[in-house]
Amino acid sequence: MEMKEFDLLALGEILLRLSPPNNERIVRGDTFEKQVGGAELNVVSGVSLLGLRTGIISKIPANNIGIFAKNKVRFGGVSDDYLAYDSEKDARLGIYYYENGAFPRKPGVVYDRMHTSVNKISVEDFPESLFSSTKCFHTSGITLALSEQCRKTGIEMIKRFKEQGAIISFDVNFRLNLWSGDEARACIEQILPYVDIFFCSEDTARLTFDKEGDVKDIMKSFTQDYPISIVASTQRTVHSPKVHSFTSVIYEKETDTFYEEPSYKNIEVVDRIGSGDAYVSGALYGLLSENGSCGKAIRYGNASSAVKNTIPGDMPSLNLNEINAIICDHNNTGYQSEMNR
Amino acid sequence: MEMKEFDLLALGEILLRLSPPNNERIVRGDTFEKQVGGAELNVVSGVSLLGLRTGIISKIPANNIGIFAKNKVRFGGVSDDYLAYDSEKDARLGIYYYENGAFPRKPGVVYDRMHTSVNKISVEDFPESLFSSTKCFHTSGITLALSEQCRKTGIEMIKRFKEQGAIISFDVNFRLNLWSGDEARACIEQILPYVDIFFCSEDTARLTFDKEGDVKDIMKSFTQDYPISIVASTQRTVHSPKVHSFTSVIYEKETDTFYEEPSYKNIEVVDRIGSGDAYVSGALYGLLSENGSCGKAIRYGNASSAVKNTIPGDMPSLNLNEINAIICDHNNTGYQSEMNR
Amino acid sequence: MEMKEFDLLALGEILLRLSPPNNERIVRGDTFEKQVGGAELNVVSGVSLLGLRTGIISKIPANNIGIFAKNKVRFGGVSDDYLAYDSEKDARLGIYYYENGAFPRKPGVVYDRMHTSVNKISVEDFPESLFSSTKCFHTSGITLALSEQCRKTGIEMIKRFKEQGAIISFDVNFRLNLWSGDEARACIEQILPYVDIFFCSEDTARLTFDKEGDVKDIMKSFTQDYPISIVASTQRTVHSPKVHSFTSVIYEKETDTFYEEPSYKNIEVVDRIGSGDAYVSGALYGLLSENGSCGKAIRYGNASSAVKNTIPGDMPSLNLNEINAIICDHNNTGYQSEMNR
Amino acid sequence: MEMKEFDLLALGEILLRLSPPNNERIVRGDTFEKQVGGAELNVVSGVSLLGLRTGIISKIPANNIGIFAKNKVRFGGVSDDYLAYDSEKDARLGIYYYENGAFPRKPGVVYDRMHTSVNKISVEDFPESLFSSTKCFHTSGITLALSEQCRKTGIEMIKRFKEQGAIISFDVNFRLNLWSGDEARACIEQILPYVDIFFCSEDTARLTFDKEGDVKDIMKSFTQDYPISIVASTQRTVHSPKVHSFTSVIYEKETDTFYEEPSYKNIEVVDRIGSGDAYVSGALYGLLSENGSCGKAIRYGNASSAVKNTIPGDMPSLNLNEINAIICDHNNTGYQSEMNR
Amino acid sequence: MEMKEFDLLALGEILLRLSPPNNERIVRGDTFEKQVGGAELNVVSGVSLLGLRTGIISKIPANNIGIFAKNKVRFGGVSDDYLAYDSEKDARLGIYYYENGAFPRKPGVVYDRMHTSVNKISVEDFPESLFSSTKCFHTSGITLALSEQCRKTGIEMIKRFKEQGAIISFDVNFRLNLWSGDEARACIEQILPYVDIFFCSEDTARLTFDKEGDVKDIMKSFTQDYPISIVASTQRTVHSPKVHSFTSVIYEKETDTFYEEPSYKNIEVVDRIGSGDAYVSGALYGLLSENGSCGKAIRYGNASSAVKNTIPGDMPSLNLNEINAIICDHNNTGYQSEMNR
Amino acid sequence: MEMKEFDLLALGEILLRLSPPNNERIVRGDTFEKQVGGAELNVVSGVSLLGLRTGIISKIPANNIGIFAKNKVRFGGVSDDYLAYDSEKDARLGIYYYENGAFPRKPGVVYDRMHTSVNKISVEDFPESLFSSTKCFHTSGITLALSEQCRKTGIEMIKRFKEQGAIISFDVNFRLNLWSGDEARACIEQILPYVDIFFCSEDTARLTFDKEGDVKDIMKSFTQDYPISIVASTQRTVHSPKVHSFTSVIYEKETDTFYEEPSYKNIEVVDRIGSGDAYVSGALYGLLSENGSCGKAIRYGNASSAVKNTIPGDMPSLNLNEINAIICDHNNTGYQSEMNR
Repeated sequence: MEMKEFDLLALGEILLRLSPPNNERIVRGDTFEKQVGGAELNVVSGVSLLGLRTGIISKIPANNIGIFAKNKVRFGGVSDDYLAYDSEKDARLGIYYYENGAFPRKPGVVYDRMHTSVNKISVEDFPESLFSSTKCFHTSGITLALSEQCRKTGIEMIKRFKEQGAIISFDVNFRLNLWSGDEARACIEQILPYVDIFFCSEDTARLTFDKEGDVKDIMKSFTQDYPISIVASTQRTVHSPKVHSFTSVIYEKETDTFYEEPSYKNIEVVDRIGSGDAYVSGALYGLLSENGSCGKAIRYGNASSAVKNTIPGDMPSLNLNEINAIICDHNNTGYQSEMNR
Repeated sequence: MEMKEFDLLALGEILLRLSPPNNERIVRGDTFEKQVGGAELNVVSGVSLLGLRTGIISKIPANNIGIFAKNKVRFGGVSDDYLAYDSEKDARLGIYYYENGAFPRKPGVVYDRMHTSVNKISVEDFPESLFSSTKCFHTSGITLALSEQCRKTGIEMIKRFKEQGAIISFDVNFRLNLWSGDEARACIEQILPYVDIFFCSEDTARLTFDKEGDVKDIMKSFTQDYPISIVASTQRTVHSPKVHSFTSVIYEKETDTFYEEPSYKNIEVVDRIGSGDAYVSGALYGLLSENGSCGKAIRYGNASSAVKNTIPGDMPSLNLNEINAIICDHNNTGYQSEMNR
Repeated sequence: MEMKEFDLLALGEILLRLSPPNNERIVRGDTFEKQVGGAELNVVSGVSLLGLRTGIISKIPANNIGIFAKNKVRFGGVSDDYLAYDSEKDARLGIYYYENGAFPRKPGVVYDRMHTSVNKISVEDFPESLFSSTKCFHTSGITLALSEQCRKTGIEMIKRFKEQGAIISFDVNFRLNLWSGDEARACIEQILPYVDIFFCSEDTARLTFDKEGDVKDIMKSFTQDYPISIVASTQRTVHSPKVHSFTSVIYEKETDTFYEEPSYKNIEVVDRIGSGDAYVSGALYGLLSENGSCGKAIRYGNASSAVKNTIPGDMPSLNLNEINAIICDHNNTGYQSEMNR
Repeated sequence: MEMKEFDLLALGEILLRLSPPNNERIVRGDTFEKQVGGAELNVVSGVSLLGLRTGIISKIPANNIGIFAKNKVRFGGVSDDYLAYDSEKDARLGIYYYENGAFPRKPGVVYDRMHTSVNKISVEDFPESLFSSTKCFHTSGITLALSEQCRKTGIEMIKRFKEQGAIISFDVNFRLNLWSGDEARACIEQILPYVDIFFCSEDTARLTFDKEGDVKDIMKSFTQDYPISIVASTQRTVHSPKVHSFTSVIYEKETDTFYEEPSYKNIEVVDRIGSGDAYVSGALYGLLSENGSCGKAIRYGNASSAVKNTIPGDMPSLNLNEINAIICDHNNTGYQSEMNR
Repeated sequence: MEMKEFDLLALGEILLRLSPPNNERIVRGDTFEKQVGGAELNVVSGVSLLGLRTGIISKIPANNIGIFAKNKVRFGGVSDDYLAYDSEKDARLGIYYYENGAFPRKPGVVYDRMHTSVNKISVEDFPESLFSSTKCFHTSGITLALSEQCRKTGIEMIKRFKEQGAIISFDVNFRLNLWSGDEARACIEQILPYVDIFFCSEDTARLTFDKEGDVKDIMKSFTQDYPISIVASTQRTVHSPKVHSFTSVIYEKETDTFYEEPSYKNIEVVDRIGSGDAYVSGALYGLLSENGSCGKAIRYGNASSAVKNTIPGDMPSLNLNEINAIICDHNNTGYQSEMNR
Repeated sequence: MEMKEFDLLALGEILLRLSPPNNERIVRGDTFEKQVGGAELNVVSGVSLLGLRTGIISKIPANNIGIFAKNKVRFGGVSDDYLAYDSEKDARLGIYYYENGAFPRKPGVVYDRMHTSVNKISVEDFPESLFSSTKCFHTSGITLALSEQCRKTGIEMIKRFKEQGAIISFDVNFRLNLWSGDEARACIEQILPYVDIFFCSEDTARLTFDKEGDVKDIMKSFTQDYPISIVASTQRTVHSPKVHSFTSVIYEKETDTFYEEPSYKNIEVVDRIGSGDAYVSGALYGLLSENGSCGKAIRYGNASSAVKNTIPGDMPSLNLNEINAIICDHNNTGYQSEMNR
């Protein structure tokens, strides 16, 4: 395959995340922690930390909040070359407020993401060269759900990247507060003919796509209905807001093989947000990096997701050596050091 | 019943609480978190967050520490109409220093609550109209234990509110560092003839009131000895400073019925202080709100207490919708979302 | 004059204010300080701290950000009885991001206040009794500028309060980023026939109302054109972002008198935001409190404004004793203690 | 002179100081900065930082707040050998709440220092060897003013140290909120016959001791009335809470000489508390250290005080090299580096 | 035994520890928590908190970072009499960066401890009287591993203290990043003839000293090969970074007895660093304090280590009463209070 | 001129900067603020914020501290393409500890920058293409002073970039703690034949280069002795640690013209570090950007430096619009807004 400037580009909204420290509540307290996230940004940042070249395609306000987001994108190892800036008077960055949970109190989110600059994003905001600059393009259902304009741009980008030979990765990432299951299905079915790598949880498959049978049947069926090569489905068990277990299944159509791994058990959850995106990042790294394979995808996907739960904020923060050590420990039944030093 | 200005008024000391952040110790570190609490204040604030109208009756110094306390009372949704101010030179707000525990280190408290302004409180500090302004009056054994003057005022207020038709609620809240079991019993027996709703733990009933038999026998016996309508008793299991389980029993004399509920298991404790008061607040809400009942009391009491353990500081911080969702999850055995969004 | 429940009610938007600590910039850093403000809220909170009974009329989202705002309103001594809640999906609280300046860097603000819940406010959100519950009603040009709906509601409220005998106070508070000078003049001229107390800076009078002559001519002319009783005009000198001087002039039509006072020189500015609103609060206190007069208004107005500059956040934070001591020092040429203890 | 274990011991109360960060107010905010101070502790810590061996004589509670104070005493370079511990139930450490000022808002203090453990201090709390262990003993009028018991202990200690050959240093440190001028004078006149080094401001000399004439006449008169060797008087000019100037005069009886120095002009005040104590520490260092003299005392006194104003908290924090550099710059009219590196 | 000035002196490096707050990562964030630690310092501080007199022997830079370390040494109750200062241009304090773990992310350490001032330490830096001033001398394998010069000084000090009658305590504390197992064994075998109390984990005994058999055989064998009186070996089980269990075995040669105790199970780990050193401190306290014995050593050792895990930073922070209460609870199967108040 | 990938590349050390918050001292307190800086990094980051494409050439450790530095480089808008990583065991990033001053206390720095990874940097660490990738190359005397290896690499890079047609910019940045004046002169005279843009303060010119005459004579003389095109010299007046004034002179050889501008007076200094580097960044922007000129250089240089003083940390943080507004205000004598909104 010819060398491209980027290994992965993703289209998605960038959000300002504001959260009270520790277990404080949104309704009280004097400070917010100030972070930046977004499903697709989280994915590309994770892939970048593992060593590939990535960038985010988005539209942000041309004010100091937008610049803060840009700075954080760069801090996360992601290229800001394809950030478009909105200089209109009503330009704004979406916000979400997040507070941690502790059993029996669940984590809570307040969204303030309407009327944001990303909803003005258009294919015309970017040069034609964008579409030939990457090996893989990723986006998620959240982008399609945000607005008519986002949906239109997302679908057009998928087609344009596909034309230029990019691998298309798509994560359903269904959010009931953004659209209904029916809306989601109708929209997503339009793009599935272009998708190569498909991320969809079992619940979403059943509720949104009316799939039946066990999870493996469901995963396989997507590759039968559409020219999808790989389907990945995460399996999270929430013991409490502070304790989860995590694993996943990946189905490879070409070899008709399911890849599985024992779950990461009793993860000590610090911040669960973005752990699904971290899974996608690990899986895409496993597929796009040298000697990529579904086996590599499941190992890096599971490890990336498990460990993201231990890191504050949306974006992952482990480099390749660190993830390799996690994977190694996960498969090691002998003596393990208790500390990295 | 005629409409009163308040659903609940409570008499009690307001304390400044100073605590090192996270797991730091009092003997070290550069900052204290600055909060306000007090058994009865915690109760009325909890009831207020659930939607009833409440106020606190207390006496605080007429200086900036007192004003801080007043501001926090208001922040907690509680009326400051019945705060009396002490302008004397020796006016002071009681303080307690609190540090979190982690097994095998228990949480620790250092009290500095002697010689405080609340010990000067008197019925004369308030207008006559106070006693006819509420549907229910609550106080606890702590108030009676603080000093001779507090005891006198507390007992007189119980009688005055009773005369004006208020429901009288009393929480024994026995503290060995304030008085002995014999002192407590002698004092409390004076007020039991006026009490309608009685909160008393099994341990206290045995040790302080020399009760015998199982917890239900004991609870029932109080209603036989005194004209008490409802007795509530909490049951906390401390697995470690960071993991508790919690439930309670409520006995209703009129129907000779015990109300029980499965316990909240493995609560992820962030701050245990005030969880007993939160129980009282939930129970009183269950009894005083529209369609009040002992069944409602046990559900809101248990949920309020369980969830208080997850919130920093003395005072609770969940509104009615949030508590309803907790109760709903507690009784739901099917699918549960992992996050509120 | 008959006794009303409130001395002062004000209509205005409540904003979440987010600011990096100290001299950090918005584009960097990990935390925001989380405060609440708004021109009219700042006014009523200041009046409340001086001892009168006040409330804010506004519409806020029925989510945890709205509840945070409500809690802070109460913390500031202001009644939340007339807060309407917006439960729609697009409910949101306006935000502004503020950073401090230091010469030659000016303070900076990024606004994100479009599409907010206050823009849905309507007279129908409140009971009829609202309009007869206060001695004085205050609002500002910001409220009228926010949207068509705010303007309509603001104008109607002015008329309804006036009908019920309330004194009407109005602060032009001209903001070029909200409307043009022509729009402002056209709108404000509609309400001037109802206004009793009028706050307007010299610059605004010249630029927006095309007034000419010296500041005293201009102030007097408003009382000639409209049935305005009192006109107040602040005079701020900005030596640097950290050093201001401040005074004002008040004109009383009835006695044809100008009230003036030597300026507070070289104020050590900590946070300039809200110092204009603090002026209004001090002036209104001076007029509405017992033995109110324009002389009292100018003394409390100037002192309140000067001292607000030294306090972080939008809302003032000094009680009557503290303001009295400031006023006393301002007029005292002899020995002064250097500390309050 | 024979070698003693300590160069300086001082008797005085140790207080917990709680202050909101930066310019926040006591009545608001979520944190207090947690420090320890006290007039005499500040003095001995300053002397210790300059290289002499010092200790504090006091009584503190035998709880974790007391241990925090002890740890901070040690952190400040001061011996804790002569701290007595109060294990009674009502043991408490005095507290004061401090907030910074900014013109026109003065710094403010709220005291909560009654009923504290230091008021139980007695000569019997310490071994007889205490009195022969130091070259110099220092205390201040604050200690004498705290209570009958403190006064008794203070006076007895002065006599006992004097008997054992210690130099006696005394700082009037008059505080109107602790006693009246008449009480102060009556008490202090009892101890002046024992005092060698006497610190008294001009204002205090006039108001408390009814002295007349210019400041030099007054200073000299003390050495005529009593066997005092050295009198020092500070001269502070408060331009604003953030800008002071400072110098002092020292009178030496033996040589009938007044020592003076140009003032430190326009000190950038960060925290004014303890700057008077820092003066005493510098002056005592100048007298007690090798080649001590009044000239050295005024240089180190002025520099220590000036620089203390720039340091947060009560206790000073500059070592000998740093103070020497300050003194050198103060006397240097040529090129000066702008930074120490 | 004759009375010595100190009960325990230890030789070792003092390090500045920098750690991101909570679960933040080193590669991100705006602040570091600033602490001081070091294996031997942690030991003496722990012994000091329990009531014995201790000091640390080390060499630190004569700059403000060194002074910070000195202040913290004193804050921890340890004498700074034997700190030597390095005034050379390349003087530096070693640093280590530490971040907390959460399963599956292990805690991580980045060391920056080469070229530090401690590597210049020499017996000549200290007065001859040092060697006769203590009842016991302690050091660890870390000190011997740091450099040729440290090794030389360490070995000479062991010999000199031994000559003066001090008990010699040695903790192998093997660190693979400082030296190899072979280097360690070769060096340590030189000093074992002087050691009285020997701390060595089972793993180290096997890997470094090629010991075989069960742990008790191994422990006993050291006392057969060398004139060692007491061997202690800790047993830690790491369930996850946040949950450990801990106990130990102590072998006493004189009585040929093994001392054991049930483990502290499911310790809620806040900061694991220094818990091994805390074990040594508790064990040494148990041996060196009045009525010292191996039984006392194991009880105080286990409790000190268990509880250190719950305290942030390297250095322990519990006094004798608190440790006694922990030990009491550990052996108590009946009712336990959940809080210390 | 042909289009290059970068407008500016610079060679220099990257340092971790640790500073206590506000006016706290290094010897006390619990936290350090964690920043990254370095003379040449500060320059390229400033140029980048104004809109040109820049990168830093350096060598940093391949550990998490190095990654933190890399993330901050990217956050500052600078390319990390030419960061070499040191994986050896002794790899380390230099550190400096900084504390703010307040008159009469000067700011203070403790350096810990010996034995760092940058001292291993070599031309071989980078691809040949580096030297043809930029329009301009910048370094400073600090880089040459760090070590023999840095000097060798620096000089070779200057020659290699020059060969490839890059403009060479050099800032003397003399630091007496790194080398003597004689060493500096001897070294710098070797590279002056390659330099196009030369930054040298008047003091340094006199003391290091033995120049005489007024500042303009001196500046001109450099262009006579060497083929230098432009010489810039800053003029800072330090009124106190918190108040500076600043301007500069630029001499253009081609036109034999001196460019000057009135100084920025009474800058409210928040953090002086890096303001000299910010000057270089503004000046280089003025020269390298479209329509570059010495007039533009002095305007952007002075404004960038003045405003950097108001920003915490080493690196500048203002974008082009903001700097343009500062410049505009500096030349505007009429009405000025007091806030950017």
